[in-house]
Amino acid sequence: MNKSLFNLDDWTKEDVNQCLNEALAFKKAEKIVNYHQEKVVANLFFEPSTRTHYSFDVAAHKLGCKTLNFNEKVSSTKKGESLYDTIKTFEALGVDAMVVRHPENEYYKTWENKIKTPILNGGDGSGNHPTQSLLDLLTIKEHFGHFEGLKVMIVGDLKYSRVAKTNMKIMQKLGMEVFGASIDELYVNGIKKANFKTDLPHMDVVMLLRYQFERFAEQENYHLDYLKNYKLTKALVETMKPNAIIMHPAPFNRGIEIDDEVVECSQSKIFDQMSNGVFVRMALINRAISDQGKQN
Amino acid sequence: MNKSLFNLDDWTKEDVNQCLNEALAFKKAEKIVNYHQEKVVANLFFEPSTRTHYSFDVAAHKLGCKTLNFNEKVSSTKKGESLYDTIKTFEALGVDAMVVRHPENEYYKTWENKIKTPILNGGDGSGNHPTQSLLDLLTIKEHFGHFEGLKVMIVGDLKYSRVAKTNMKIMQKLGMEVFGASIDELYVNGIKKANFKTDLPHMDVVMLLRYQFERFAEQENYHLDYLKNYKLTKALVETMKPNAIIMHPAPFNRGIEIDDEVVECSQSKIFDQMSNGVFVRMALINRAISDQGKQN
Amino acid sequence: MNKSLFNLDDWTKEDVNQCLNEALAFKKAEKIVNYHQEKVVANLFFEPSTRTHYSFDVAAHKLGCKTLNFNEKVSSTKKGESLYDTIKTFEALGVDAMVVRHPENEYYKTWENKIKTPILNGGDGSGNHPTQSLLDLLTIKEHFGHFEGLKVMIVGDLKYSRVAKTNMKIMQKLGMEVFGASIDELYVNGIKKANFKTDLPHMDVVMLLRYQFERFAEQENYHLDYLKNYKLTKALVETMKPNAIIMHPAPFNRGIEIDDEVVECSQSKIFDQMSNGVFVRMALINRAISDQGKQN
Repeated sequence: MNKSLFNLDDWTKEDVNQCLNEALAFKKAEKIVNYHQEKVVANLFFEPSTRTHYSFDVAAHKLGCKTLNFNEKVSSTKKGESLYDTIKTFEALGVDAMVVRHPENEYYKTWENKIKTPILNGGDGSGNHPTQSLLDLLTIKEHFGHFEGLKVMIVGDLKYSRVAKTNMKIMQKLGMEVFGASIDELYVNGIKKANFKTDLPHMDVVMLLRYQFERFAEQENYHLDYLKNYKLTKALVETMKPNAIIMHPAPFNRGIEIDDEVVECSQSKIFDQMSNGVFVRMALINRAISDQGKQN
Repeated sequence: MNKSLFNLDDWTKEDVNQCLNEALAFKKAEKIVNYHQEKVVANLFFEPSTRTHYSFDVAAHKLGCKTLNFNEKVSSTKKGESLYDTIKTFEALGVDAMVVRHPENEYYKTWENKIKTPILNGGDGSGNHPTQSLLDLLTIKEHFGHFEGLKVMIVGDLKYSRVAKTNMKIMQKLGMEVFGASIDELYVNGIKKANFKTDLPHMDVVMLLRYQFERFAEQENYHLDYLKNYKLTKALVETMKPNAIIMHPAPFNRGIEIDDEVVECSQSKIFDQMSNGVFVRMALINRAISDQGKQN
Repeated sequence: MNKSLFNLDDWTKEDVNQCLNEALAFKKAEKIVNYHQEKVVANLFFEPSTRTHYSFDVAAHKLGCKTLNFNEKVSSTKKGESLYDTIKTFEALGVDAMVVRHPENEYYKTWENKIKTPILNGGDGSGNHPTQSLLDLLTIKEHFGHFEGLKVMIVGDLKYSRVAKTNMKIMQKLGMEVFGASIDELYVNGIKKANFKTDLPHMDVVMLLRYQFERFAEQENYHLDYLKNYKLTKALVETMKPNAIIMHPAPFNRGIEIDDEVVECSQSKIFDQMSNGVFVRMALINRAISDQGKQN
């Protein structure tokens, strides 16, 4: 398997399960071992991030690696340097892997093959967010033990969500039945349409998305209308199957797409998702920086 | 003793002395030992800081820990995430301790008990700054060998200073006689009023405070008047007891609350305070991340 | 030799060669060894930087050191703290070495002797950039095996370039013949004037400089004229000696001072320079933090 990870398009069921098993092995380890104290991982984030950025940072640290945290605002991108030249620079500096988040969809498209250093995609525009998908899948696998036949409903702004797009493809490949619940303007093709409230009781997983206020500043009324019909309230949670789970990639808007008291309710896996992100990223970094044939 | 530290309200004399002794043990150690190479400490600073932030960073590094340095400006707080959700996120990421500075007084009040990860308060608004107090106390203890009966005068903006407020309470508990010297508008209750110039010769410790220009931009004349009467000049230093010491939490305004040539004079402990801060924070981090019963 | 490095003014040929040999020893090492895991290096950058900053960061990490990355924007320099007081603070915090970049020429002039902690100059205004020179020299030495008699042409904005100024002095000391090619307004005294296009075929090294757009925003036409006459195009590269090399300190403006296709052509050493920077900085940090008599 390639040491870089841009998207999950080529990943098979077996690839997913192998990665999740590696992540679980890290999660179960009683003592953390410094495998890679001579390795350096560079985090290059060109968009705001808390979870993804620091999750990769913790993951690298737990593997014993040193990390570089590139800050666009105080770098030579201020002098007009392109993303490719910045990436090429970090390769020349000899870092062992890079984590990149960038607002442009498929930012890596033109130079993917010109860079030898493994790159882990921390999110590209409204395109892909493969490590988020993998941590979501780990959370589902831990709870249900399998993927086949599970019904998942992804709710809200499907159109601009890289999380939604990455998940709907890989979940279908894993045999899950994926539904989308949203208004027409924010819907995407390729998944079945569901009615948020009436279909909710039949779902195993309800995956909420962040309402991206920063994207829609001009159209408030439209949104308030939309939002109130797609908010997961406590009353709605009570209509869910007892064993169903609630997910959200976070940050979440308390009171907007999710009621305050639902965030930390017993069916919510939101903070478990964050914890699992560290282990998935440990598995991915470990694979990226390990020598061929010596992978754990 | 609790592994978190929000303020010193519950600390006894014995608690203080135990902490200072632990700090001194780190200070005297000839070789630094990597105790905790598998631990991760997150620094979350929501206000500008040089000394407190990097002092905690050095302290964590000297204990062998990895550190995360959260940068609000490039994080999801840009997307509106609350402090509680950010803290809860770092807990989910599995960090072993957090250092938090935030502009809101008692920012931790509503969620203190909902977070299990030890938190060390790096300053809350104009409320508390317990680690600054402890490094001040270490500096005083090193110089005088005791606290009982020492006379300290805290000078300047007592009202908005978390340093002043934290110190006056704990110093009184330790048997020091604490005086305040300031104009009425910047005075606080709870300590004896002193005359800056005429009482100075009787003091063992004179503790200056930073004049917080950023807070008072509109009222310059008022301040210039005030400032010139509360500046520690070389001539005033000559009226002090030979064994008395000068302290300042820094950053200091040279020429405003302290004369340029006083900053590094023989009675000034300003840079010693900074050095001691590292050892106090090593003691506090060590306590926070050590397993029960295995503390050094 | 002094553990601090502000400029190369006092460096002899032997000093240069000793430093380059130390750098080469690090480059050839098959396994990275953690020499200094108890040491802390602080990076203090008061100007944007990618290469220099992260190169020092990688270098420190490869020596096993912990690093602090000072961010001016979230520090007490926001409260008006001076550079000297910031440096003095990091000394008090006990860091083992500091890397400083600052926009003021010879920022260290007034306090050089008051700071005991070794400081490595990462660039001062339009004054000096000694570590850049040393990595340039390492790249030249690796390619040619010697300096004596080599012809180098430095092209472009000589006047405001700390890279150009530092290089022309040390290269002449090493027996290289140094030429400058630029318009009169951006020329400096102290090197021979060359004609960019007609003298190019006689050069061993052509060293391009970044056109600093941010400095000249008002005078565009003037620049466009200038720029088109001093751009290294593919056609011009073909007039160069087969063994000659192309250098640039980067970031480079593709299509301005260098043609897109020249950046990664076979004679370009631009990314090799970046790689070599890490090894030169390892040598300098190692020297700065090693105990007397125990230097590698």
